[in-house]
Amino acid sequence: MKGDAVQEKEQGITVKKEKDFSEWYNQVVLKAELADYAPVRGFMVIRPNAYRLWENIQAFFNKAIEKNGVKNAYFPLLIPESFFRSDAEHAEGFAPELAWIEQGDKDVEERVAIRPTSETIMYDSYAKWIRSWRDLPLRINQWCNVLRWEVKQTKLFLRTREFLWQEGHCVYATKEECDREVRLFLNEYQRLCTELLAIPTIAGMKTDAEKFAGAYYTLTLEALMPDGKALQMGTSHNLGQGFAKAFGISFLDKNEKKAIPWQSSWGFSTRLIGALVMVHGDNKGLILPPKIAYNKAVIVPIFFKREGKKVLGKAKEVAKMLKQFNPILDDRPSYSPGWKFNEWELKGIPIRIEIGPKDVKAKQVIVVRRDTGKKEAVKISSLKKRLAELLDEIQENLYKKAKSFLDSNMIEVKSWEQFKKGIKAGKMVLVPFCCSAECEKSIKEETTATSRCILLDQKPFKGKCIKCGSEAEKKVYFAKAY
Amino acid sequence: MKGDAVQEKEQGITVKKEKDFSEWYNQVVLKAELADYAPVRGFMVIRPNAYRLWENIQAFFNKAIEKNGVKNAYFPLLIPESFFRSDAEHAEGFAPELAWIEQGDKDVEERVAIRPTSETIMYDSYAKWIRSWRDLPLRINQWCNVLRWEVKQTKLFLRTREFLWQEGHCVYATKEECDREVRLFLNEYQRLCTELLAIPTIAGMKTDAEKFAGAYYTLTLEALMPDGKALQMGTSHNLGQGFAKAFGISFLDKNEKKAIPWQSSWGFSTRLIGALVMVHGDNKGLILPPKIAYNKAVIVPIFFKREGKKVLGKAKEVAKMLKQFNPILDDRPSYSPGWKFNEWELKGIPIRIEIGPKDVKAKQVIVVRRDTGKKEAVKISSLKKRLAELLDEIQENLYKKAKSFLDSNMIEVKSWEQFKKGIKAGKMVLVPFCCSAECEKSIKEETTATSRCILLDQKPFKGKCIKCGSEAEKKVYFAKAY
Repeated sequence: MKGDAVQEKEQGITVKKEKDFSEWYNQVVLKAELADYAPVRGFMVIRPNAYRLWENIQAFFNKAIEKNGVKNAYFPLLIPESFFRSDAEHAEGFAPELAWIEQGDKDVEERVAIRPTSETIMYDSYAKWIRSWRDLPLRINQWCNVLRWEVKQTKLFLRTREFLWQEGHCVYATKEECDREVRLFLNEYQRLCTELLAIPTIAGMKTDAEKFAGAYYTLTLEALMPDGKALQMGTSHNLGQGFAKAFGISFLDKNEKKAIPWQSSWGFSTRLIGALVMVHGDNKGLILPPKIAYNKAVIVPIFFKREGKKVLGKAKEVAKMLKQFNPILDDRPSYSPGWKFNEWELKGIPIRIEIGPKDVKAKQVIVVRRDTGKKEAVKISSLKKRLAELLDEIQENLYKKAKSFLDSNMIEVKSWEQFKKGIKAGKMVLVPFCCSAECEKSIKEETTATSRCILLDQKPFKGKCIKCGSEAEKKVYFAKAY
Repeated sequence: MKGDAVQEKEQGITVKKEKDFSEWYNQVVLKAELADYAPVRGFMVIRPNAYRLWENIQAFFNKAIEKNGVKNAYFPLLIPESFFRSDAEHAEGFAPELAWIEQGDKDVEERVAIRPTSETIMYDSYAKWIRSWRDLPLRINQWCNVLRWEVKQTKLFLRTREFLWQEGHCVYATKEECDREVRLFLNEYQRLCTELLAIPTIAGMKTDAEKFAGAYYTLTLEALMPDGKALQMGTSHNLGQGFAKAFGISFLDKNEKKAIPWQSSWGFSTRLIGALVMVHGDNKGLILPPKIAYNKAVIVPIFFKREGKKVLGKAKEVAKMLKQFNPILDDRPSYSPGWKFNEWELKGIPIRIEIGPKDVKAKQVIVVRRDTGKKEAVKISSLKKRLAELLDEIQENLYKKAKSFLDSNMIEVKSWEQFKKGIKAGKMVLVPFCCSAECEKSIKEETTATSRCILLDQKPFKGKCIKCGSEAEKKVYFAKAY
């Protein structure tokens, strides 16, 4: 049929990941039906294939934070203008990206904007709720949409004006407790990236120039994309006592003395889905790590008409047997097996199971791995066990592959020439750095690279800043970044 | 301590549900820490205690819709002005409540508003995605926030300018399929209300005056609140082909002919949490049906100092044993048992378990039901089993109680005088009705009651309209409403 012919032609990815990474990315996102452009520029539609990934990320992370005493809640979308003035640094950071509501006939006392992040609106409530040391620590998280009117070129999942995220906001009696948990939640992010997304990351601290507007310090998780650009996967901020002072949050300590608490916030967004696409995908399309894939396998029966009943019957039996893996049974009569293979490879399903008349006779199926393309015949009697093994192997293989890419692209250099060469070649480059805003600015101007993070838990170190040559006590990663 | 004294004084609900229902409701919502007022008028903060209920509703409903082939997705918050013009009836319905974004330096081609509902923005995408009969039915749901700038007095959960909801949007090849599933999803709503929330409901069809802006017809689920006002719990609309025509959604049918599909949408909101409070709560506060309660029980150890270790040890043991019920172990030393009893009754925990020194000796605990206040001693060895039984009994009892209230407040009358008397007494009144907009308007003006729904699946019937006396073929429920 005509409609099919058109689909067939447009089905695959038409550029190579190695040749035109950016176009390859767009095609995978659109053709695997992860997302689509929205009518308003800079916005996106998150389609069911991607939303399912987000739900799996949510489920994984909800378990992690519940274990740590965090409760989910929901705060309002709209924030009064005066709240942005309460913390000057924070306000300045977000002012250019705010979307304000037209006053018109709205009965609001002051201008209101759509939340770009929720520190201010949440801490206004916290000030009412927190009275005594007994109310601390307070740990609240929310899953929501936020809006930042980006002027930079937007890109599906990676930079859109609206995105979905989680933002955790905690209040502690002491700095020590706050420090500890700022690190704790960053560790949970790293575990999520490693275990669920199969993406290796580097944990570190942001320089003052790159830290969150209003933060005391910012911890970050950085991953390296195949095009040599770093992607920030999540951040965890110690906010100090600034917001508490600005919003009047205080508590009576055990000695009945009024004290100012310490606060943290931490977040990751739907951007993680973009990372997933970039890190694992290939020229056939998406590759989903099995742990985040909802449908772990697709079953494609292959037959000519007269054998149909037998083969289809067996395929259904197998589908039922594999229920725990949520297999797709693709028994659509109007598509060819080849078309189906391409379709499910494009969509990243970890394992394909082919069943033909010969397989039915031999009581076996053909199992094909999405990551390596390796085929093997598996007896139906041992299929469940073998599938579980293979899924573990795929998960591990994807992580290893990404890890070896990251390892081979992290270099440590001591000279400015080597630094520039490394950045040009798309490396994460570790250098001694004085951490001054000036040096950072001039490095960015000269190389487009930015500091990604100050290595955590460094041994005492003395060196010369890669840029200005003055004393440097820290080693810092630089890279081009999204 | 001073802080505690203040808390003690303010802890309980200070008005009777029977005396001042509205104030009682506000106090329960605020003091059980379900919600709080936001800084912008008409908005609310959904606190962890209520958000947990919402998550449980989501989990229940996600299972129900997945079974029916629905997939979750996420569409943009902002909708272009021209979309509202595409369907005149729909646009008119929402125009007064839209919040527009200030244009200022925003690079948008046209004015954009925050979604009051997502028909238009979703169908714009559907028009791109749907090509062939193979793409149908398309069933997508989204969980999101929506904003309607209500001018009426707002009320926590029941009417706020922003609320959370789910909106399902399906596309079908035929009217029959559409009709069938419009009913199907209403049935799923009813099942959710019955099984999870323990709230009995009446299913019916809205009159033309009360149906959704742009719908062909609207099915609704109505519950009766203790103050005699009906509350709409969810609606399911057959949208006909109007939106498809307005947004250019068409498909090639099996004969390769272009056809216009039928569409449906269906939604419920965080308002359900308000219903839960109103229907089950009492003068001590919230009562949660066990199935929606996350913490099914609270354990309160009772002891003087020297017995503390033994009692606390046993309480911990019991808590561990009851893990499947997510029990709270309230071992806070600075609150008295009496204070704790009040606290957890206020918050609606279905079962309280008291353990004192005598109980430890007798290898038993005292179990107290939140719904009836009944106490019983239960041997620890059979506690798990007994708790499961009791939770089922509480769930059933709450439903029965609500059902008997509903049944005794639904009356059928034939005269206008009886009608007015019934409405005044806070009844759901079933009457023969001509279904004209004029009669409906004049009934509303005279009694403040509105038509709640046309009884579904009525036997053929001929009567005289309760208002105008002309021929009436339908029986319709009227009530005052939220």
